[in-house]
Amino acid sequence: MIKKERSLMAYTPEIKVMDCTLRDGGLVNDFFFTDEFVKDLYFANLRAGVDYMEFGYKASKEMFDIKKYGKWKFCDDKAIREIVGDNKTDMKIAVMADVGRCDFKKDILIKKDSPIDLIRVATYINTIPAAVEMIEECTKKGYETTVNIMAISKSNELDIDAALELLGQSSVGCIYLVDSYGSLYPEQVSRLSEKYMEIAEKYGKKVGIHAHNNQQLAFANTIEALRHGVSYLDATVSSLGRGCGNCPIELLLGFLKNPKYRINPLLKFIERHIVPMREAGVQWGYDVPYLLTGLLNQHPRTAIQFMKDSRRDYHDFYLDLLENF
Amino acid sequence: MIKKERSLMAYTPEIKVMDCTLRDGGLVNDFFFTDEFVKDLYFANLRAGVDYMEFGYKASKEMFDIKKYGKWKFCDDKAIREIVGDNKTDMKIAVMADVGRCDFKKDILIKKDSPIDLIRVATYINTIPAAVEMIEECTKKGYETTVNIMAISKSNELDIDAALELLGQSSVGCIYLVDSYGSLYPEQVSRLSEKYMEIAEKYGKKVGIHAHNNQQLAFANTIEALRHGVSYLDATVSSLGRGCGNCPIELLLGFLKNPKYRINPLLKFIERHIVPMREAGVQWGYDVPYLLTGLLNQHPRTAIQFMKDSRRDYHDFYLDLLENF
Repeated sequence: MIKKERSLMAYTPEIKVMDCTLRDGGLVNDFFFTDEFVKDLYFANLRAGVDYMEFGYKASKEMFDIKKYGKWKFCDDKAIREIVGDNKTDMKIAVMADVGRCDFKKDILIKKDSPIDLIRVATYINTIPAAVEMIEECTKKGYETTVNIMAISKSNELDIDAALELLGQSSVGCIYLVDSYGSLYPEQVSRLSEKYMEIAEKYGKKVGIHAHNNQQLAFANTIEALRHGVSYLDATVSSLGRGCGNCPIELLLGFLKNPKYRINPLLKFIERHIVPMREAGVQWGYDVPYLLTGLLNQHPRTAIQFMKDSRRDYHDFYLDLLENF
Repeated sequence: MIKKERSLMAYTPEIKVMDCTLRDGGLVNDFFFTDEFVKDLYFANLRAGVDYMEFGYKASKEMFDIKKYGKWKFCDDKAIREIVGDNKTDMKIAVMADVGRCDFKKDILIKKDSPIDLIRVATYINTIPAAVEMIEECTKKGYETTVNIMAISKSNELDIDAALELLGQSSVGCIYLVDSYGSLYPEQVSRLSEKYMEIAEKYGKKVGIHAHNNQQLAFANTIEALRHGVSYLDATVSSLGRGCGNCPIELLLGFLKNPKYRINPLLKFIERHIVPMREAGVQWGYDVPYLLTGLLNQHPRTAIQFMKDSRRDYHDFYLDLLENF
């Protein structure tokens, strides 16, 4: 077992903080962010020392109706360029591409023509070969790549091992440990981080973590993973993300001892954009129904519906979940 | 160093869950709980398998105006008895007594005449001798005792060692690791837990943890301490407690594998009492200002005031805090 614990006072130079506010947050408002929101977030991240900013999905326009979603569901290179110009900064631009829900051959251009730096391939464990195909295509086009293996808390341990081996042998740069249902406890994250790090070190890859806050553990799990050598850390402003949301970036940057990170610009962004968004009734963040789906290792869709319906009968909801366990 | 890590699947029979909803929550509403709230909480805790329920403080009526606070600031034995009768149950009744802010010789009766089982002595590190005097008095009167050493994140390490030695030599049953400012990270809790456990094992005591949620770590820190042998676990319903609140009891009971704990009765209580309390405008729980005081290891009073004033200028608040660091 690899034991690569970092000390709290030290800072790890290889850490990369990835802001996923637009992508995971887009799942809350169908990607209808104003340009002002996106521009302000871009400059806030830049000033805060964030390493990567994820703009959204490269979703298939044949599968998804472009009238039903904001532009960050599709992340045309042109749309990104309208915000970042040529992005002559140290911060890199990322987008996510779901296996089976994007037309990557057509929609992902050659890197030298694109403002995008990193393609994040998202896959379930049973579509790893398709993910590898996408990774190789993106590498060939000149991009950095990462891969998210989703819903591993429902996966067989041997399948995870096999998936990690396949990805280790691919050209992917970083493999993400993803707690899709917010069901993992820190000691499970610790063990899984060691497993992912073992493969990563064998093949010269990095490992990342993407946590959800169902049990108020997104931040705790992120820093637990960091203790074990995981270095790509996903977070969103004020947790903005599907259902209970993600690791809050303001907590994460406050914790990191790297002097390049500053929380001040993000505090300004929160004042200006997050507070009004909440006041306008946009709903996300920890609440009892998310705890219950997390506890039972279930997809949060039932909890999201419960919240949308303004229900408060937590007890009956829990009994329903137990019946469908 | 003691390494007494428990495994996630196992359950630790010596765990004691302490519900502090009335006591820490009383700091939010000046202890003005209705009898219906208190009775429903008592029965919910009972049905949930909670081991101890803390009713409030034994505060001095000479120092505090009884007209300005609800009765649970003072916890007369008679008031408790009106809720619990003779409490012929397995759940024990606790109250907190602050060093220097209670008339313990007069107000704490002899155990056999009282519905109270446990006196929780709360002290700062510079009043340990006075705390020991209270502990010995309470032991002599027939009570179980615990002691909270508050604000240790501001204390010198050698002072903590000396305090632990003094308490080890006292008759106290359990020594609490208290994260008053919500500034501790899990790896610090891990190290401190080991320190506290070392003294506890030497003197045959238990160790408890009382966490605050400034950095969304109250639950994570509580289960981290548990991994290291800490067995008295403080929590409150839906985090209800001063400022950002505490470890949510519904998360904690969901995590514990002891089959005697059930979250269902607490979900009903949340529906019935916590939701209306929030809707009535009572304010507590994680928010940016608490993160900032936690991050800077400061008392939350400035953050509480910020929230009371309905301010949203987080950035200016942070600059103020940094100036007064």
